[in-house]
Amino acid sequence: MSTLAKTMSKFSVWQWVQLHVTKVKADNLSRARGLISEAAGHGAKVVVLPECFNSPYGTGFFPEYAEKIPGESSRILSEAAKESQVYLVGGSIPEEDDGGKLYNTCPVFGPDGSLVLKHRKIHLFDIDVPGKIRFQESETLSPGSNLSVFDTPYCRVGVGICYDMRFAELAQLYAKKGCQLLVYPGAFNMTTGPAHWELLQRGRAVDNQVYVATASPARDETASYVAWGHSTVVSPWGEVISKAGSEEAVVYADIDLQYLANVRQQIPITAQRRSDIYTVNAVQEG
Amino acid sequence: MSTLAKTMSKFSVWQWVQLHVTKVKADNLSRARGLISEAAGHGAKVVVLPECFNSPYGTGFFPEYAEKIPGESSRILSEAAKESQVYLVGGSIPEEDDGGKLYNTCPVFGPDGSLVLKHRKIHLFDIDVPGKIRFQESETLSPGSNLSVFDTPYCRVGVGICYDMRFAELAQLYAKKGCQLLVYPGAFNMTTGPAHWELLQRGRAVDNQVYVATASPARDETASYVAWGHSTVVSPWGEVISKAGSEEAVVYADIDLQYLANVRQQIPITAQRRSDIYTVNAVQEG
Repeated sequence: MSTLAKTMSKFSVWQWVQLHVTKVKADNLSRARGLISEAAGHGAKVVVLPECFNSPYGTGFFPEYAEKIPGESSRILSEAAKESQVYLVGGSIPEEDDGGKLYNTCPVFGPDGSLVLKHRKIHLFDIDVPGKIRFQESETLSPGSNLSVFDTPYCRVGVGICYDMRFAELAQLYAKKGCQLLVYPGAFNMTTGPAHWELLQRGRAVDNQVYVATASPARDETASYVAWGHSTVVSPWGEVISKAGSEEAVVYADIDLQYLANVRQQIPITAQRRSDIYTVNAVQEG
Repeated sequence: MSTLAKTMSKFSVWQWVQLHVTKVKADNLSRARGLISEAAGHGAKVVVLPECFNSPYGTGFFPEYAEKIPGESSRILSEAAKESQVYLVGGSIPEEDDGGKLYNTCPVFGPDGSLVLKHRKIHLFDIDVPGKIRFQESETLSPGSNLSVFDTPYCRVGVGICYDMRFAELAQLYAKKGCQLLVYPGAFNMTTGPAHWELLQRGRAVDNQVYVATASPARDETASYVAWGHSTVVSPWGEVISKAGSEEAVVYADIDLQYLANVRQQIPITAQRRSDIYTVNAVQEG
């Protein structure tokens, strides 16, 4: 019985894969492909992979693992999406563009295997909590500059990657663009994970009255960067409706647009926003 | 031994009074005045009262309890601030302007008794969660249209009232204006309290890297509107650092600007914001 089968308790259109990521790219890709196929066998129509799922997470690894898009990893993802007939949010991979710049990029594929969009992480993860965690993505990566929204038959989705989630403004723009679900492939760590991982997701959800979901790599205590795990799905009411542990697992949840509409009707903050005041004050401060 | 003395375990510059509010305005005012004086005796230099502290919370009560500012209640607050030599964030009271319009208004006084500002609740509390809570402030109240910021020797403070806290944009503007503490006198209820009271405060704090604090009335199960209580102070890291139960109490906390500076240095989201992208996308959507 596979890990997936053990952690699945029902069929669901939406599934998030908390993949165990190793240093062997080919293994990461084949495991991901297998789990996508299993998810589809359990009813998935949309599958989300974790941040940096084909490479260990670390600025030293990015140049070595980086690929063009299209390239080897995205070819495999495209094939997996097509053979399983799913929308595939390809977590992220280190991407190299034609000019040699590197990005942390999430490619999204349609059920026909086509590349729907690629989201380059906008906000690079540069933090320094003394004695806890220091990480500077900008040592090797460049930031993206575009928002990424795509439509499925089930709802409209906005994509961010990990640290993008810390920026409320991005989620607000996605909500204004009609997104009903925000997905953040992400790999928080053993310091920021317990402090902020769930809080940020619940905050984005309740402030924008959208579903919010994350897909993290499974925790690997032997890795140089230890991911927090705990891939999560949060409802527009701010409730955690599905959450993995730290091991490899699949998280599933229903995205219920009627429930979302009810929440927005009950506490109608979108209609009640005072954009007149926000705009005037934003202009005044220059 | 008074309630205050029982719940105080140390001296603190900042104190939030979770007042037990009754239908007798004179009693509410005299209890508030007594607790302000006790707080000052325990070292308070800034005291915050709850939303609607001189009146029961209900649209039917607002016209009956409403006053001009200056008026009886604000005169008593002014005297209390002056005699205790404290900054006094006067929770809120139903205010009637010269044209007969009513507002939910927070008057703030300096240690000399002067009126520093008054904040009229910008976002009126109009919600309807079937079978749980329906409340429509707009039945009798008008909304304010101004942000409210004041300086103390200890830090810069932004003021909102209760439902104002649901609007991330207001907190973002206050943070941009240099506020280090956001105070929200507020009275969430037995539905929205457990769901969102703490989440919203922690979200505002971690997103803007500011201290956030609330002062609620104590819970009164016999009232028509039952307040959640649980006045809270949250650090810029998103941690609850002080929290009352449901009974009358005083919450105290240190506002540590060095700690705030450390958090902002460690996870420098303010400097990392991509305003270029936010602005372009805000304009594009019109």
